[in-house]
Amino acid sequence: MPAGELSSPNQAHYGERHVRRLNLIRALTDVGGLPLASVSKVVEAVEDLDRPVHKLLGAAARTVDPARAPEPGRESGDRARALVGELIARRGWQVPGDHAAAVSLATALAALLEVGHGDYLDFLDEFASASASEQIAEADLAFVARRQSPEEMVERVVVGTVLGDAMLACLRRLAQSDSSARRYPRPDGPEAGRTASR
Amino acid sequence: MPAGELSSPNQAHYGERHVRRLNLIRALTDVGGLPLASVSKVVEAVEDLDRPVHKLLGAAARTVDPARAPEPGRESGDRARALVGELIARRGWQVPGDHAAAVSLATALAALLEVGHGDYLDFLDEFASASASEQIAEADLAFVARRQSPEEMVERVVVGTVLGDAMLACLRRLAQSDSSARRYPRPDGPEAGRTASR
Repeated sequence: MPAGELSSPNQAHYGERHVRRLNLIRALTDVGGLPLASVSKVVEAVEDLDRPVHKLLGAAARTVDPARAPEPGRESGDRARALVGELIARRGWQVPGDHAAAVSLATALAALLEVGHGDYLDFLDEFASASASEQIAEADLAFVARRQSPEEMVERVVVGTVLGDAMLACLRRLAQSDSSARRYPRPDGPEAGRTASR
Repeated sequence: MPAGELSSPNQAHYGERHVRRLNLIRALTDVGGLPLASVSKVVEAVEDLDRPVHKLLGAAARTVDPARAPEPGRESGDRARALVGELIARRGWQVPGDHAAAVSLATALAALLEVGHGDYLDFLDEFASASASEQIAEADLAFVARRQSPEEMVERVVVGTVLGDAMLACLRRLAQSDSSARRYPRPDGPEAGRTASR
């Protein structure tokens, strides 16, 4: 936060920029569920605005969502890491194998294997090719690229990551609910789904 | 959790089912970031397994991810609610307008408007039509429908929602990183992106 302007020895005046920044922090923590500690880490991580844009955006993304590695020494972790490596190769993604999101993805896949629901991974390519990948990623980058200053671009990475995740999770639930209503229709028609069943 | 079998007055024997259930709770809380309180709420909410499948799945989803309403009395909230209603109508989704995910979606959109990044909503239809909606939702429902018992179906809704969100967020980051590497290439080629820039 920029310092306020002192209007008297123990009062400071905060302008529009402060209000905007406070609104942003509240949106990230309240709506996006980002821990407050992460917000200040993002600010530190992106202070070096002279880095290449791709590096800067990566640093912002990593800070908002740090890598979580699978527990070491477990077969599920090894298998999950191999699956992620193969997926990245199949899709031709220009990302290093030790990318924070690749590591975290392996952890999620390992957890699915551990809890006996590994067949969810049958849909991994469907999920990846679906624009929870490319189509959405292109839209996200276009959103960031509309701004010119590194500071504003970084803010858009953070907003797009945190509020974008929240938005996409809601869209997914709505589409699931629609699929469920079609798959398990009630005898008295879809409209009946609008009222409580008991 | 089912009770353990007492092997002596102060020792209980826990079998494979207990270990499996503990693994599940750990995966949901550690990897999925679900608060432990929500895990036990899910168990309570889905105790009434006699309800129609569509209702049961909805109750599980709502408990994992309860509705968050936009702050009342703000123009951004009204505008966001209208946008969500129009989106649901455009897509022909069979969901009530007061669906928990519709309410939470309005909150996320209102937050984007509040922080001055409302033009992210230009991509709302792209996000919705992208299979972060239909294609993924169909895969999710197919994953759930592979099981017959309501108890197992509910477990799959919870696993698919919590670990599925984690998986999709990682896939989104990977695709973003790939898009970013292509959009902002370094003069010495994409492979150079694998090493630190300073």
